[in-house]
Amino acid sequence: MKKVGVAILGLGVVGGGTYQILTEHREFYRKTQDVDIVVESVLEINRERALALGVPEEKIASNIAEVISNPDVNIVVEVIGGIGVAREFVLAALNAGKTVVTSNKELFCKYSHELERAAKRQNVGLYFEASCVGGVPIIRTLLDGVQANHITSMMGIINGTTNYILTKMSADGVGYEEVVKEAQRLGYAEADPTADVEGYDAAYKLSILSSLAFHTKVPFAKVYREGITGIAKEDISYGKEFGYVLKLLAIGKNSEKGIEVRVHPTFIKKEHPLASVNDSFNAVYLTGDAVDDVMLYGRGAGALPTGSAIVSDIIYASTHSENKYSTFKNNASAEKDVKFVQDFESAYYIRLTVEDRPGVLAKLSSVFGKYGISIVEMIQKSAGEDGKVPLILITHTTKELSIRNAVNKINALDGVGQVDSVIRVVS
Amino acid sequence: MKKVGVAILGLGVVGGGTYQILTEHREFYRKTQDVDIVVESVLEINRERALALGVPEEKIASNIAEVISNPDVNIVVEVIGGIGVAREFVLAALNAGKTVVTSNKELFCKYSHELERAAKRQNVGLYFEASCVGGVPIIRTLLDGVQANHITSMMGIINGTTNYILTKMSADGVGYEEVVKEAQRLGYAEADPTADVEGYDAAYKLSILSSLAFHTKVPFAKVYREGITGIAKEDISYGKEFGYVLKLLAIGKNSEKGIEVRVHPTFIKKEHPLASVNDSFNAVYLTGDAVDDVMLYGRGAGALPTGSAIVSDIIYASTHSENKYSTFKNNASAEKDVKFVQDFESAYYIRLTVEDRPGVLAKLSSVFGKYGISIVEMIQKSAGEDGKVPLILITHTTKELSIRNAVNKINALDGVGQVDSVIRVVS
Repeated sequence: MKKVGVAILGLGVVGGGTYQILTEHREFYRKTQDVDIVVESVLEINRERALALGVPEEKIASNIAEVISNPDVNIVVEVIGGIGVAREFVLAALNAGKTVVTSNKELFCKYSHELERAAKRQNVGLYFEASCVGGVPIIRTLLDGVQANHITSMMGIINGTTNYILTKMSADGVGYEEVVKEAQRLGYAEADPTADVEGYDAAYKLSILSSLAFHTKVPFAKVYREGITGIAKEDISYGKEFGYVLKLLAIGKNSEKGIEVRVHPTFIKKEHPLASVNDSFNAVYLTGDAVDDVMLYGRGAGALPTGSAIVSDIIYASTHSENKYSTFKNNASAEKDVKFVQDFESAYYIRLTVEDRPGVLAKLSSVFGKYGISIVEMIQKSAGEDGKVPLILITHTTKELSIRNAVNKINALDGVGQVDSVIRVVS
Repeated sequence: MKKVGVAILGLGVVGGGTYQILTEHREFYRKTQDVDIVVESVLEINRERALALGVPEEKIASNIAEVISNPDVNIVVEVIGGIGVAREFVLAALNAGKTVVTSNKELFCKYSHELERAAKRQNVGLYFEASCVGGVPIIRTLLDGVQANHITSMMGIINGTTNYILTKMSADGVGYEEVVKEAQRLGYAEADPTADVEGYDAAYKLSILSSLAFHTKVPFAKVYREGITGIAKEDISYGKEFGYVLKLLAIGKNSEKGIEVRVHPTFIKKEHPLASVNDSFNAVYLTGDAVDDVMLYGRGAGALPTGSAIVSDIIYASTHSENKYSTFKNNASAEKDVKFVQDFESAYYIRLTVEDRPGVLAKLSSVFGKYGISIVEMIQKSAGEDGKVPLILITHTTKELSIRNAVNKINALDGVGQVDSVIRVVS
């Protein structure tokens, strides 16, 4: 039976989960996968933590050199995170001829070219299933499950923290600030939640997933990104009146016009399968030219779900000798010629506060008309004590730039009112 | 670039879709997969159909010998269906050293051992992604996506015809017979719908999927099977009152007690992700000990979705040299020792028609008590003109045998009434 030695760099949440899965399932993998996977080394500054997890003292390495010079180590798992030592250690491991399995979305998003070059040079593997959507095998699916298709569209709820926050805001009718505090208390949001709530985390993942789906590197810088910090609870409840649920969606599209990648709060119809993906669950909804719609749903984070993805990669690396660094073919040459769509199209939800007097609606209509924006639905609420009237409307599919121009124009008009929110709608 | 020659046996719906995908995407696969896949031969009795699809005359074979003796053919796609010539042709192809890709669930369910032996003997591949759940890559996911897990449970909506019928009955409040006729008219149900509505199709697929999930051959004969022909529209609407949606679920469980596999109409809570899988869509909901819950959703049938699965297998076969017939390891020896659970446990929905007089409820309660059945919820409707009262109840988790005994007992009692329906509930 083939024996495979694994080293784990970092025994945090995911590293600990990976260690646990590998040790508890060793006999299971011997039986079902015909491979004997053994943790030969761990690198963890907090020795106590390693010992508490049951790592034998002699397997705790003191530095990266010790790990990568260990001839019993075939596969190095990087679960440190960030782009500092993680990048350095991953390159060192690849250069030492070790296959690397990583959960590091920022690293893979920003440095995949460099890492792949190193892997190819040494003819070793580079796997990253755990970098996107936790335990959900979305990367394996893109590579080996729907690879017969031109993927034309991808929509994902790929950040658990923001989905938890939006689900709570929607269910309890409370504001953003209040929910974030609760999420932090429960451990669902970090003390500094910026990476999640501003959409960076989702954008890293979208860059990786759309690169695979569209067969060309989609750089992080090309991802339009807008977070959820500006979402008012009123928008969520007005959206409900139109039959919409608010989600932070990562959207990728590939058409003759080019590739379009964006992360932003989005209203989707409550009947859409993504609308009932709640709490910290994640899902990716793909459309291919042959397979039509496919959705994968599951836990986007957590020690064991993410550990499941890492161990899946370890088993794959141990039982397959090809497709070791297959992110996308022809990438270096293709990237230069890729066209990206900046002025994308969408339907829009627009909330305004307008003056309660004759002629206001006519002025608004004239601005929308000028920019070619037509309205599908509109709700006017009764005036508040200040005499201002909330007006909510949904547009037909329109160019983003037209909406921005119209909004600027309306805000600049005297005696009309102001635009409070603009939220894109999946029509 | 590697060149791969494909033969397609049968140009029906799926064969036609496969031919179309392969020819239209040839350049795409050259670019993205670094492989040149060419249809070298087709076997189709209806020559006109082949010509109409654009197959060049010289590529239409006259018999199977011509196909398997063609040195340009590396992969044979079987999309004939059934276990007659399909079995004969697949074995002939394997024995001639061709890799086989099949969409044939009945064949693979009933003869996988025989086919695998032939594949192993010749060291060729045997792939069957298209046999289960159309374009949804559930088999690839079980083999390469969640293989790090002990899969403890699997619940699937894996037959599109019955899901279409139940969705319609639920949405329109009409009876089974009426919906089946409409489904036949629309082409969603066969003229003889037995294989679908009696659960055979779902049972074949469950046998295949649970064999992979549980790493041991689960024979078709072990699958408990009950169709949807006995479902009354009243049951669907009473179920709604309890918050349930009715689905034909394929359920597989693996625990210390053994393996449990069953296909039957099932009530699930309307909040469950499977409850909103409607019309002809399919989904499989898996639970693993590390990954927790994962769901895959998509089109379970159709020319292009099923063709997508077939071409996915062709590409996989062309780009991977290992794991060619990897259904499950150790199968021959393991199968003998597998324990199957016959007397499974479930919650139950029971609809009775009882006499409208004192003492009836006491008698019922005494029977349920005798068999250790306790009731979670009950709805009593007002009496009809015949003086009979509909009584609907949901039980706690109970053994199947206890329910059957209790039902027989109640039906045998004088002056109580009768049990009209018993439907299992996922609690």
